[in-house]
Amino acid sequence: MTTYSAVRTQTVSAANGIEYAYRSVGSDGEALPLVLLQHFRGNLDNWDPALIDALAEERRVITFDNTGVGASTGRTPNTVAAMADDAIEFIDALGLDKVDLLGFSLGSFVAQDIALHRPDLVNRVVLASSAPQGASGIHGWRPDVIEAVGGREPSPEGYVRVFFGSSPEGLAAGQAAAGRIFGLRTEGPDEPTTWQTRLAQYDAVTRWGIPDHAKLERLQGITQPVFVANGDSDPMIPPRYSHLLAGLLPNAQLKIYPDAAHGFLFRHHKEFAADVNAFLRG
Amino acid sequence: MTTYSAVRTQTVSAANGIEYAYRSVGSDGEALPLVLLQHFRGNLDNWDPALIDALAEERRVITFDNTGVGASTGRTPNTVAAMADDAIEFIDALGLDKVDLLGFSLGSFVAQDIALHRPDLVNRVVLASSAPQGASGIHGWRPDVIEAVGGREPSPEGYVRVFFGSSPEGLAAGQAAAGRIFGLRTEGPDEPTTWQTRLAQYDAVTRWGIPDHAKLERLQGITQPVFVANGDSDPMIPPRYSHLLAGLLPNAQLKIYPDAAHGFLFRHHKEFAADVNAFLRG
Repeated sequence: MTTYSAVRTQTVSAANGIEYAYRSVGSDGEALPLVLLQHFRGNLDNWDPALIDALAEERRVITFDNTGVGASTGRTPNTVAAMADDAIEFIDALGLDKVDLLGFSLGSFVAQDIALHRPDLVNRVVLASSAPQGASGIHGWRPDVIEAVGGREPSPEGYVRVFFGSSPEGLAAGQAAAGRIFGLRTEGPDEPTTWQTRLAQYDAVTRWGIPDHAKLERLQGITQPVFVANGDSDPMIPPRYSHLLAGLLPNAQLKIYPDAAHGFLFRHHKEFAADVNAFLRG
Repeated sequence: MTTYSAVRTQTVSAANGIEYAYRSVGSDGEALPLVLLQHFRGNLDNWDPALIDALAEERRVITFDNTGVGASTGRTPNTVAAMADDAIEFIDALGLDKVDLLGFSLGSFVAQDIALHRPDLVNRVVLASSAPQGASGIHGWRPDVIEAVGGREPSPEGYVRVFFGSSPEGLAAGQAAAGRIFGLRTEGPDEPTTWQTRLAQYDAVTRWGIPDHAKLERLQGITQPVFVANGDSDPMIPPRYSHLLAGLLPNAQLKIYPDAAHGFLFRHHKEFAADVNAFLRG
């Protein structure tokens, strides 16, 4: 099997006029394709290849740059709803009628809206480091968090602190993940994400976080099985929002991973991949 | 120290004209008194003495029959809000200005309303096998659950199934707890709860469970530290409602106890008492 670090980036032209950059590893068997939705400012290169390869052992795994991100054309929209519509256009362009979704952080918000906008497209959903729209207390993240990851020049130290924490174990895990993410790739890299993407995505994040209790009821509309997962010390989207998701989604299971921050799924990539594989098997 | 099984039932006359039956074990030290709020159809005798004695090692623990229950006078009201007002009258009658609360099942609903009606009275709150008012999916409990515990003649088998599950370990734990609850008492027992109490309490439970998403926002008003706890296989109030509480309360911590049903706090009395003692120490 071609690994995520060695797979070539492909493109597909969608009906909305956008040319989407994507990568595909693993092969279709009994399982549905799993489409991954990326975090704030992340592109194709920012997925941990160790995680992708472990997931691809049982299925086809597809990563992509949404509209305006990395090597995809267009302008990044500033709402989660528009990002979800754009992701649906990408999935349609691949000719897929039914998929599983794994959304990470901002991508998990997009996954929720995909499931709400086009339920028939979605079989099962994994929400990693997630929160419901309208939940109180996450409007725009904590100042130290957005300062760490939101600057004009992305700071590796800030990324590691938010994604892996500042304990010695966290820092070591962050270094190991960064080594896999940035050190293994043998094929051409993705285009970096732009300042336009950063501004539009952060606008989308803050709009998602405008406190609106009534919006929490939207989750009743996601009737698919959902696996909600988070790190126990995520400073960006604290685990109480995963509790909230698991309490409001009609059909959810929850796992909080120990000693882990926003990037728990890279920190605990083996355990998380095994949990996701078990969940997707049903 | 006098144990819970050996302590005498006392009475106190409150300003609302009710004479409340109560028991008090342990002594005031640095800790505030802990007032316990009992489950559906439960009286003073239905607390596991092993749990009470472990809690009383660090504080004064007070159990009581609310209005109309067991040996207390009056008629059991049919709303949680009225039960909370009656509990406040009892606490006032004891001359207490500030207490910790531990509510179990219906008692945990009452604890929430006490904290909302008179916040100044409440220091910390433990919600065991609980749910928020208005949460979707618990209107009146599952038919097999209310059938097991709601009949005119209470069924020990039904109680054990709902409180301890039906695994061999659960049944053994249920027998052990029943042995402590009904076999250890050397002082006079409480009066049994009446059919009027059963009807009024169940009306209160169903009214609490009328789906009303807006009511979930009430939890924002409970700003005290709250420890939310449940069994992982509670058939009466499933753990997703504890997740929901922990996600909506501004200052909550959550623990789900393994291999345990509604009566997880009796099943795991040592572990739960240690967790509660640690939580109340702050």
